[in-house]
Amino acid sequence: MRKRAEIIAVGTELLTPERVDTNSLAITGHLNQLGVEVIAKHVVGDERERLTDAFRQALERAEIVIASGGLGPTEDDLTREAAAAALGRRLDRSLEQETILIRRFRDLNRPMPDNNLRQAQLVEGAEAMENPNGTAPGQFISTSRGALALLPGPPRELEPMVANELIPRLRAVVPPQVIKVRTFRITGIGESALDEAIAPIYTKYTNPVTTVLSAIGDLTVQLRAQCPTEEEVDELLIEVGNPIAERLREYIYTENAAEPLEGVVGRLLRLHRATVATAESCTGGMIASRLTELAGSSDFFVGGFVTYSEAQKIAMLGISAELLRRESAVSEKVACAMADAARSRTGATHALSVTGYAGPTGGTSDDPIGTVYLGIAGPSGTRVVRVRHGNDRYRIRMLATQSALNLLRRTLLG
Amino acid sequence: MRKRAEIIAVGTELLTPERVDTNSLAITGHLNQLGVEVIAKHVVGDERERLTDAFRQALERAEIVIASGGLGPTEDDLTREAAAAALGRRLDRSLEQETILIRRFRDLNRPMPDNNLRQAQLVEGAEAMENPNGTAPGQFISTSRGALALLPGPPRELEPMVANELIPRLRAVVPPQVIKVRTFRITGIGESALDEAIAPIYTKYTNPVTTVLSAIGDLTVQLRAQCPTEEEVDELLIEVGNPIAERLREYIYTENAAEPLEGVVGRLLRLHRATVATAESCTGGMIASRLTELAGSSDFFVGGFVTYSEAQKIAMLGISAELLRRESAVSEKVACAMADAARSRTGATHALSVTGYAGPTGGTSDDPIGTVYLGIAGPSGTRVVRVRHGNDRYRIRMLATQSALNLLRRTLLG
Repeated sequence: MRKRAEIIAVGTELLTPERVDTNSLAITGHLNQLGVEVIAKHVVGDERERLTDAFRQALERAEIVIASGGLGPTEDDLTREAAAAALGRRLDRSLEQETILIRRFRDLNRPMPDNNLRQAQLVEGAEAMENPNGTAPGQFISTSRGALALLPGPPRELEPMVANELIPRLRAVVPPQVIKVRTFRITGIGESALDEAIAPIYTKYTNPVTTVLSAIGDLTVQLRAQCPTEEEVDELLIEVGNPIAERLREYIYTENAAEPLEGVVGRLLRLHRATVATAESCTGGMIASRLTELAGSSDFFVGGFVTYSEAQKIAMLGISAELLRRESAVSEKVACAMADAARSRTGATHALSVTGYAGPTGGTSDDPIGTVYLGIAGPSGTRVVRVRHGNDRYRIRMLATQSALNLLRRTLLG
Repeated sequence: MRKRAEIIAVGTELLTPERVDTNSLAITGHLNQLGVEVIAKHVVGDERERLTDAFRQALERAEIVIASGGLGPTEDDLTREAAAAALGRRLDRSLEQETILIRRFRDLNRPMPDNNLRQAQLVEGAEAMENPNGTAPGQFISTSRGALALLPGPPRELEPMVANELIPRLRAVVPPQVIKVRTFRITGIGESALDEAIAPIYTKYTNPVTTVLSAIGDLTVQLRAQCPTEEEVDELLIEVGNPIAERLREYIYTENAAEPLEGVVGRLLRLHRATVATAESCTGGMIASRLTELAGSSDFFVGGFVTYSEAQKIAMLGISAELLRRESAVSEKVACAMADAARSRTGATHALSVTGYAGPTGGTSDDPIGTVYLGIAGPSGTRVVRVRHGNDRYRIRMLATQSALNLLRRTLLG
């Protein structure tokens, strides 16, 4: 039988307007990989009775319950007590855990406050899960229907514990399933046009589960398939994924979920032994900073000009004052001249230029706010694309950056 | 008596590893302003029985229960049914809401699918809350102890409804309280050093509630005070906030929660009728792009050079090849020359330069990865600061950007 899980995040600070529980995302990812579905998540403050009730109710609904937080040394840290109370078990001192704690403080050359011994208390029957990054051990408690796990709150303590301690123990509880994800990263198409194009394909299937994630100018389609065997899961991802890939071909820039658009561009530049320079007006350095985010970007990124004013277009790039006056700084000819100048002045094989109206003021009736001219200069000449999208400064700049990188990507692909 | 609230986010998509419920943050902010404390939050999938149970249990624990999501037109949208079932009330067709829906579709010139009429069903006794941005009305249901509210899931529908429809109705249910927040935005000090400095002050008070939020190189201290009158709340924020402001004086760059560091720098530049240019190596345009994020930045930002390679430091800034060879590109003298050149070539009153080792390769034994030289040139001369922090490329670049902007801020303040 498929197991279901509930996740409880413990901590009053997670009930403020500033903080969300993000631990549950990492936990959910791992559980899904095991074929365990998360059916509910809860955030509860540091309050003994409410927390005990939350554990009791979750244990009634789900075979697997995972809590994070509230394992610290202070009186406010009530997860151990509440879990024990909900299970009707004792809370015991663990001499082994006390020894580990005392040794840890000795190694750090710090006196151990007495209340830290609370962290050595284990729920009756619990296995301690090692915490190399903190003083609170995790706890894994087998129950008649499944398991209850207690994890520390800080992500750098929780995440390795989930991967190294919790998941191996849960494997024994959960029937095996193979889960794989196929990902398409997409730019140059809007979310509704994308959904219209592929919904006829994916809505026929409940397995894989298809999710569309949307960032500014950057969409991700994820197919998550789950089958008893690896062959079945691979077959399913081909059956559903290939028609989607076919339909979106020109918009997909990678199937690698971890590779951003600038990463694809950098990889293509290396592959072609090509380099790039930038001349940015309204994006103000965003393209250069995206490209230099990549380790080793000096292999392909040569240099960039941020020419925000007309005076700097003249001084830094040698654009003629007459051209700027005749055509205006936001024009096809100026975008062309900027790309040419960036290429010739740096000796890069390719150059990108951007000039546009990011708002909130500026623009003309022909070229209203949001109009951006993107230039690309390369061995086979220079061309300019005019785009218009976004209606606030942040979106206009993000979309212009994304469009410029995509223009370079498509140019490199021929 | 103080009222307590629980928040339920409805939707299976919120139980995936990619999505967090963020609606609850906006709702919590508004509730806190009314003096209502959120005691628990839940995420539940689109499953009738689980959702009904979640409503029933939340209504037992809290006077106010607020749900978001699940008000769409499809069979999966079960919030209305579940809320009615949990309260033991009927679900009624509302002719008024049906009329509004039909009119809305007619105005959009789109045929209305029959299932959309589900959105016109109201829980017995509910008041509809207007939704100018979508087809699902919200519902406000008075209960014997308080209220239950149903809100649509999309933030652009939910957020105006909370502000304009929900909060005015809740005011009638909740005894009045004045809440104010005092915020300090801080850079140039680490989180633990900050906490050590101010914990002796704020830990004496449970009102205001003090929260420290941490981003890379950017900390925020928030004091949230709540009292029956405005005078009391103001007095309290002075009593606790002033000693904190005193202690952190040199690190606080603004008390305006909405003003980022580049905003403060832009404001100071305008105030001094000064301008800035940049010459960036390892930050690759991040400083320029932060400064040009601000609307109207052409008032104070002149231009920027992204000189990622030695060749471009020579070509774009005229740094001498001999200096680069003798001192290396990451050095005090080169940072100084870069700032001077950016200033003289652009005519800006001030120039910032950055050169450093962002990793993952590079560095020397004297200047290991993470070492960054920041230069600032201005009317009273040029100076260079050496910083070293961060251990991955992303953090090193972020911290260098933040430090450079802060250097300019402090220079402008004298």
